[in-house]
Amino acid sequence: MGAALALAERGRGRTAPNPSVGCVIVRDGIVVGRGGTRPGGRPHAEAMALGQAGEKSPGATAYVTLEPCAHCSERGPACADLLVAAGVARVVAAQRDVDPRTNGIGMARLEAAGIATTVGVRAAEAARSMAGFLTRRRLGRPHVTLKLALSLDGAVALADGRSQWLTGAEARAHAHLERSRHETILVGRGTGEADSPSLDVRLSGLEARSPVRVLLSTRPHPSHPAAPRKGEGEWLAIASPHDIATLPGDHLLVEGGAKAAAAFLAADLVDRLLLYRAPVIVGGGRTLPDIGLADLADAHGRWRLVDSAALGADRVEVYERG
Amino acid sequence: MGAALALAERGRGRTAPNPSVGCVIVRDGIVVGRGGTRPGGRPHAEAMALGQAGEKSPGATAYVTLEPCAHCSERGPACADLLVAAGVARVVAAQRDVDPRTNGIGMARLEAAGIATTVGVRAAEAARSMAGFLTRRRLGRPHVTLKLALSLDGAVALADGRSQWLTGAEARAHAHLERSRHETILVGRGTGEADSPSLDVRLSGLEARSPVRVLLSTRPHPSHPAAPRKGEGEWLAIASPHDIATLPGDHLLVEGGAKAAAAFLAADLVDRLLLYRAPVIVGGGRTLPDIGLADLADAHGRWRLVDSAALGADRVEVYERG
Repeated sequence: MGAALALAERGRGRTAPNPSVGCVIVRDGIVVGRGGTRPGGRPHAEAMALGQAGEKSPGATAYVTLEPCAHCSERGPACADLLVAAGVARVVAAQRDVDPRTNGIGMARLEAAGIATTVGVRAAEAARSMAGFLTRRRLGRPHVTLKLALSLDGAVALADGRSQWLTGAEARAHAHLERSRHETILVGRGTGEADSPSLDVRLSGLEARSPVRVLLSTRPHPSHPAAPRKGEGEWLAIASPHDIATLPGDHLLVEGGAKAAAAFLAADLVDRLLLYRAPVIVGGGRTLPDIGLADLADAHGRWRLVDSAALGADRVEVYERG
Repeated sequence: MGAALALAERGRGRTAPNPSVGCVIVRDGIVVGRGGTRPGGRPHAEAMALGQAGEKSPGATAYVTLEPCAHCSERGPACADLLVAAGVARVVAAQRDVDPRTNGIGMARLEAAGIATTVGVRAAEAARSMAGFLTRRRLGRPHVTLKLALSLDGAVALADGRSQWLTGAEARAHAHLERSRHETILVGRGTGEADSPSLDVRLSGLEARSPVRVLLSTRPHPSHPAAPRKGEGEWLAIASPHDIATLPGDHLLVEGGAKAAAAFLAADLVDRLLLYRAPVIVGGGRTLPDIGLADLADAHGRWRLVDSAALGADRVEVYERG
């Protein structure tokens, strides 16, 4: 299931309107097929993995991060039927599908065909890997990750705005990998106009996975065009964090600056914090402005650390809603 | 050696003018004696451990966090001589003693008596456990730990100064244990006058180990007495961070507030950062003021993470000079 989760993570930001799912097929202790949901949502992970396993499928175990779908579509067959036809002996799913066309029906169809089933293995991680799909489905908007690069004392820049370089090369590379897993990337007007940022993915082999740029422009005015004048390519623009439902894709990365970050936090529209922490003290630097917090008691219980790692001298910490 | 280091850590803040040392004596795989430097610096750790081991000492191995002393004093015998007289077979020391009366002489005396010796086992940790002694010896001042309790975005309090409670009960208990390992604890005038803090150790069994309170009062004036009027007990006062050499003991804990913290950082008089990080976002809170940093490049390489742990929902991170 760990390998299936890694395959799912690899597709994050490319499979909308479908969730990114991973599937690994094992026979006699040997991996005979691996697959992830393909860009655009089809083929599904199970079809990819079964195609790779071929005649080694009969008697095998399929590990999949989501209940295999029970509904046929013009875009492809039902995965539950594919698994039955392939003759697998066992299916281990991380979680049920919330789609009513499948919810429980996929597993029941497998059981009816004599296939052993297990549901709930590493369910929390699987839900995390498809948080974009689930957020769009439940809340009608993309899943929002707020990225902040911070000093130990919370500065995102010096008082005059300089922030190059707070974090090191490893942290920046990690941030670019995160960009590749989001369909859209947003900056505020100040960052957009001052830095004319390319916001692209500068990682070898992933250049084509740069997200669509979005400008948060809360003060539309004829003398302030919606999109920055500098820089190449097209931009989308929204006037308020509350307009994110209109954005394409299921994953939005809020990249900066501090005002845009605060606007999303104040609107309670951040699902995930991606914090890059440099081991430096700035003192008197630019920090996150007011987000409308009246009392410290209201701030507690909102964020839960789910991952952390060293990145050179820096650290990355990932928090999710508590 | 790990057990010896733990014994040394236990005495931190109580053994000045001597370093806090730990000693464990093992025979046939069984610990037969344990000791740490006693409050005030005598007896030494080896004397305590040998006293416990008694007639089990011959043939045993002594693990000690510092080279056994070679010099007699009116306060006690030389530990190297005690180890020879006890008949131990082997002495493992974490590091040499920088004191010229012992440096290398202690180990040589053991070797001359036919005792096997090893030096350098977990030397970095041993140096850390006696950082107060080494800092006083090298720089003529106490070792300075700066404690900060921070939100994810670096706030030490709300904009209006309220900071109760940013961190939880576990973090506060940890901070009280740290207090017990410092001879002196400093706050700035604002914190001293506004909060009339007791700054004592509120941990069962350690109440007697509360440090001496020190006020940083940079604007002495008749209408501003050196010590806060509220609160019980006596205070010391210094006018500038540069005056810490006059303070008793080898360990100073700078406890708050943000201005006092910044004064010590600006003076480059912080040796260790003790950061309690709460998983909350404040936004627009009170953060560390200017410390005179002109360029981000100057901030790098100064701090190195040496320890971190979860404390309830919070985390503690310890940084030392890089």
